[in-house]
Amino acid sequence: MRPSAILETALYVDDLDAAETFYVDILGFKKYARAGNRHLFLKLDDQMLLIFNPQVTMKPSDLQNLPVPVHGTTGEGHVCFSGSAAEISAWKDHLEANNVTIEADFHWPSGGRSIYFRDPAGNSLEFAEPSIWGLDGSG
Amino acid sequence: MRPSAILETALYVDDLDAAETFYVDILGFKKYARAGNRHLFLKLDDQMLLIFNPQVTMKPSDLQNLPVPVHGTTGEGHVCFSGSAAEISAWKDHLEANNVTIEADFHWPSGGRSIYFRDPAGNSLEFAEPSIWGLDGSG
Repeated sequence: MRPSAILETALYVDDLDAAETFYVDILGFKKYARAGNRHLFLKLDDQMLLIFNPQVTMKPSDLQNLPVPVHGTTGEGHVCFSGSAAEISAWKDHLEANNVTIEADFHWPSGGRSIYFRDPAGNSLEFAEPSIWGLDGSG
Repeated sequence: MRPSAILETALYVDDLDAAETFYVDILGFKKYARAGNRHLFLKLDDQMLLIFNPQVTMKPSDLQNLPVPVHGTTGEGHVCFSGSAAEISAWKDHLEANNVTIEADFHWPSGGRSIYFRDPAGNSLEFAEPSIWGLDGSG
């Protein structure tokens, strides 16, 4: 028995409005839900990216009166999105056209390209080819 | 243009040995790589779970001499793994048999069950049915 897939990935930000502008308007995410100053939930094909304000989620939740455990981090988290080589080139152009700095851009010794950039909270985001992990990206 | 899939999800821990025992021996993850006191990389079907020691990753990296940007968080992060209703029941039994406390266990108002527990660093882990997000879990 082992986990087969990650359903929810979380990032933490200090400014949900800035996050919404960045993730929805620039990265093109579909907004699934926004709860005031607590969270912004974004939907991918088969996964969720959950963006939380840790100042709220570190306190006991009364969310829907459900006993959701406390959580929350400070500092710069990391998420990498899948992209083909062609998609990564297009993302680089798109990000730069939106004044998002590409912090790093390189090919791994065993093949495959990664580009890195930051969200407004400083989280380290990446697009990479699934082949860097021996994955084919068809999943 | 929008990201279609998350390839890498990151968590941060203060003790990689404790994390390896927990994630590999109890959760059953396949160990993809371990780099001393820097990281433990785990492979799922089509994704990677990257577990980092932030004390190392917050400093500039000389990893393979590649310009991997700094990152790292403190506090309690969150990751949710996919599971069917039957799998979640089996995970609850398995976790309790390994003396892992189930912190919360409930059904969402719109259907679907979640169970929550902690890794040794305090990160909030969850198994949930993809249906809680309107996903079918076949992806």
